[in-house]
Amino acid sequence: MRLLLNGSKRVRVFTFNRRTLERMPASENADNRGRVIIAKPEQLATVKYNSDGLVPVVTQDVNTKQVLMMAWMNAESLQMTLAEGRMVYWSRSREELWRKGDTSGDRQFVREGFYDCDGDTLLFLVDQEGKGACHTGEVSCFYRSFGSE
Amino acid sequence: MRLLLNGSKRVRVFTFNRRTLERMPASENADNRGRVIIAKPEQLATVKYNSDGLVPVVTQDVNTKQVLMMAWMNAESLQMTLAEGRMVYWSRSREELWRKGDTSGDRQFVREGFYDCDGDTLLFLVDQEGKGACHTGEVSCFYRSFGSE
Repeated sequence: MRLLLNGSKRVRVFTFNRRTLERMPASENADNRGRVIIAKPEQLATVKYNSDGLVPVVTQDVNTKQVLMMAWMNAESLQMTLAEGRMVYWSRSREELWRKGDTSGDRQFVREGFYDCDGDTLLFLVDQEGKGACHTGEVSCFYRSFGSE
Repeated sequence: MRLLLNGSKRVRVFTFNRRTLERMPASENADNRGRVIIAKPEQLATVKYNSDGLVPVVTQDVNTKQVLMMAWMNAESLQMTLAEGRMVYWSRSREELWRKGDTSGDRQFVREGFYDCDGDTLLFLVDQEGKGACHTGEVSCFYRSFGSE
């Protein structure tokens, strides 16, 4: 595979073989950053949405295991997340689909998706791009702890 | 320190010194299994409850970093959790305080508690006792993944 990156003044050419790509962090693997998941109809039918048509989603870094954030999905954004291999939430404040990172550049690429015993919460393991998940600039939205100085 | 355990027919006497206790897994340290957290008033004031007076709580195993479950707390159960060093949720189905493990024996001992950037989700790192967090017998409630066989 060949990648052309127009970095600064000179065009730099990188050549990767399959072995190199497999060793690369997913965030540098521009050809296959997210995992597309074909969910079974009975799996999707297990997901329970609340009265607003939303289900809470916990997002965890697949590498560090750090819990990055909690947000919400509706059925459409879940379908998009699975189909695109990128986290797409429903923004309750803006009342619109929220393709994480389209504005900030800090996208989240899907590695695995789980639904819980009751089907009313989802958990996604992601490869977090850029500086992190939080709009404050922190890696995780959970950067403040009770009782600490 | 001396512990008297009336196990079976004989009373067994164990003597632990401080060094032994510090090396013991928290789940075997009967005197100090959970961490009591003194939260500051401004930290507690940051927590936003929904229209039902509840806030979602993500619970993560402090050792394995596995996300165990997602449940809900009201202000009272959050206060109890911090004061007792044990996870106390609000059961939406039973509409009552739910001191995790009182029935199952699989208690969750608090190690650290976080609130997120918006103050509308909590994250607790716990020492999970027994066989796990899920009522199905699984360690984590998130034991089923989309797309897997």
